[in-house]
Amino acid sequence: MPNNISKSAIIKEGVIIGENVTIEDNVYIDYGCIIRDNVHIKKGSFIGARSILGEYLVDFYNDRINKKHPLIIGENALIRTENVIYGDTIIGDNFQTGHKVTIRENTKIGNNVKIGTLSDIQHHVYIGNYVNIHSNVFVGEKSIIKDFVWLFPHVVLTNDPTPPSNELLGVTIELFAVIAARSVVLPGIHINEDALVGAGAVVTKDVPKETVVVGNPAREICSIRKIKNKITGEQVYPWRYTFKRGMPWEETDYDTWIKNISIEN
Amino acid sequence: MPNNISKSAIIKEGVIIGENVTIEDNVYIDYGCIIRDNVHIKKGSFIGARSILGEYLVDFYNDRINKKHPLIIGENALIRTENVIYGDTIIGDNFQTGHKVTIRENTKIGNNVKIGTLSDIQHHVYIGNYVNIHSNVFVGEKSIIKDFVWLFPHVVLTNDPTPPSNELLGVTIELFAVIAARSVVLPGIHINEDALVGAGAVVTKDVPKETVVVGNPAREICSIRKIKNKITGEQVYPWRYTFKRGMPWEETDYDTWIKNISIEN
Amino acid sequence: MPNNISKSAIIKEGVIIGENVTIEDNVYIDYGCIIRDNVHIKKGSFIGARSILGEYLVDFYNDRINKKHPLIIGENALIRTENVIYGDTIIGDNFQTGHKVTIRENTKIGNNVKIGTLSDIQHHVYIGNYVNIHSNVFVGEKSIIKDFVWLFPHVVLTNDPTPPSNELLGVTIELFAVIAARSVVLPGIHINEDALVGAGAVVTKDVPKETVVVGNPAREICSIRKIKNKITGEQVYPWRYTFKRGMPWEETDYDTWIKNISIEN
Repeated sequence: MPNNISKSAIIKEGVIIGENVTIEDNVYIDYGCIIRDNVHIKKGSFIGARSILGEYLVDFYNDRINKKHPLIIGENALIRTENVIYGDTIIGDNFQTGHKVTIRENTKIGNNVKIGTLSDIQHHVYIGNYVNIHSNVFVGEKSIIKDFVWLFPHVVLTNDPTPPSNELLGVTIELFAVIAARSVVLPGIHINEDALVGAGAVVTKDVPKETVVVGNPAREICSIRKIKNKITGEQVYPWRYTFKRGMPWEETDYDTWIKNISIEN
Repeated sequence: MPNNISKSAIIKEGVIIGENVTIEDNVYIDYGCIIRDNVHIKKGSFIGARSILGEYLVDFYNDRINKKHPLIIGENALIRTENVIYGDTIIGDNFQTGHKVTIRENTKIGNNVKIGTLSDIQHHVYIGNYVNIHSNVFVGEKSIIKDFVWLFPHVVLTNDPTPPSNELLGVTIELFAVIAARSVVLPGIHINEDALVGAGAVVTKDVPKETVVVGNPAREICSIRKIKNKITGEQVYPWRYTFKRGMPWEETDYDTWIKNISIEN
Repeated sequence: MPNNISKSAIIKEGVIIGENVTIEDNVYIDYGCIIRDNVHIKKGSFIGARSILGEYLVDFYNDRINKKHPLIIGENALIRTENVIYGDTIIGDNFQTGHKVTIRENTKIGNNVKIGTLSDIQHHVYIGNYVNIHSNVFVGEKSIIKDFVWLFPHVVLTNDPTPPSNELLGVTIELFAVIAARSVVLPGIHINEDALVGAGAVVTKDVPKETVVVGNPAREICSIRKIKNKITGEQVYPWRYTFKRGMPWEETDYDTWIKNISIEN
């Protein structure tokens, strides 16, 4: 298949482009990117310097022939420098990353997702919409991360209950849950809606809805509703009533937004 | 503004240089670096292969026009490969980094600072002089790190007491304090002079001067003055009396150096 | 010395090759790699885009003259993108890495070793055969990692008992030991054969043979022989009897393999 590259796309010096590549209107590809075969970049996206899109899966290395593993990047992405994103992955609209992010194959990422510098998203991962993943998070194979989840720096999601083994159990994180910095979640754990995992925790048991856990091993300490803002003294959680930046209710509030969504559908 | 590039500078193949760039005498820029606009590299500095200096701030991405955000790198820097350093940042003399370090905007770094491979220094950070940051440390926005501090591999400095929120409280680390590997420090914590945080700690309370803390949550275990060298049995801390490498008292001792400094001033 | 590059080697666009470089038959060097002086890549190896091989040691930076520090990479390596591997290091056959791995000087790596994305292997490290190191592991100077060891994501091996100091004590990990995700091992610790360190542990004492430790500080909880597979209920450890993928007993079983090895020798 020939390439299909919009005339309004800006492609800077030193970019290498493979075959069967589609680059839509107003895409900007900065210096030295490698766009391998079967990559589709939708309109308005920015690809940072030296990012590698459509990276080879392991089946390349035997005969050094690239098989067909399409990568789709949605509209208006802002991918910073030196990301590596494999083929056979689909990424929604308004995706944003920091530097040097790795995303492997057979992973599906929704709309309005942000992933920070150095984070490493393994294969066969599901990430919903409006998920925020900060710097240097490790998301193991088979993780399921639902809408509006936050993972803070250096969080690790594991998957092997008896390492090394072939029977992986991914972590599942439900809507609005927050995992603070440098926590590790053990294989197969279910973190329920609006749960809050404190920094540095080692989560060895499922975390109930709206529950705060801390420590190694993590233990329940209270309901999220008991946590007060250190300055104002006001109730903080569920955070969707106190935090708006980047959220679909940014221009209004959560209740108004959810009511309008319900009416629309 | 035109560029001002010294004739004694060595610029290797594939380097891209923007506008209003100053490169002083005996600077060496290795293969494939990207020097964006408004970067000033002072004399004798080495910039490792494929580093990106003066990286775009977020205001670039709306209209894809680079605004004026100067980056200054002091004399005799040794920046290894694939660093990304944003504009609006000032770095002092004798700066050294490992590979793939990220340093964001509005950060100020003093003289004689070392930052290890993969470390990620966020925006609005202050780092003093003679600070040593090892591999893969995360320094969150609003952190203040004073002179002679050591952060060992995988340390994480957080800043959001009720994540996600807009009210960030940075960590402050005072003179001579040492944070051992893979510790995490919670938002707004103050680690006082000569404190020692043991490996893997989760620091949830301020650490008093000359105090050792360990554990999750970290608890005080003794004065730093009680720690003996495992081989010689001698008192180790305050470390400025037992360690000299790379320090301004390397040729003499701490007491002589501090006395001379006082006389000079 | 002139270069010695096989006619069957594939060298893609933008590769830079220094002096005294040997590239054997069927080596593939992807876009933009930097192969510095005195590198020897054995037959069948694949070098991922923009990797840097034979990276400068610190003695380069004084006079900017590269001294002789050979790097040898064994047969059939699969090195993914943006690795940095220093001179004065020897790597055996069938080496595999993820992206953005760093390996420093005076390190020796055996055959059939795998190292994951972002891992940082410091200098003066010994890694045996069939060692598996996952993503973003930090292996400190003077670590000794024997055959068939597994290190899972974000493990940190430290080396300085009284930081900062000049008297480093590396960690030693014996045959078949497994260290789960995000654990940190303190300086000089000896982890014995078939030991299992649970996720998020802080290992402050030697771990006896076939022992499970968890927690901060890590404490012994049971023999590895008591751990059952969560699904089948069968005994899992020692894992060499239940796991074969990538191991030399993959086509048979451990007992048959070890018996044949003994007969052959």
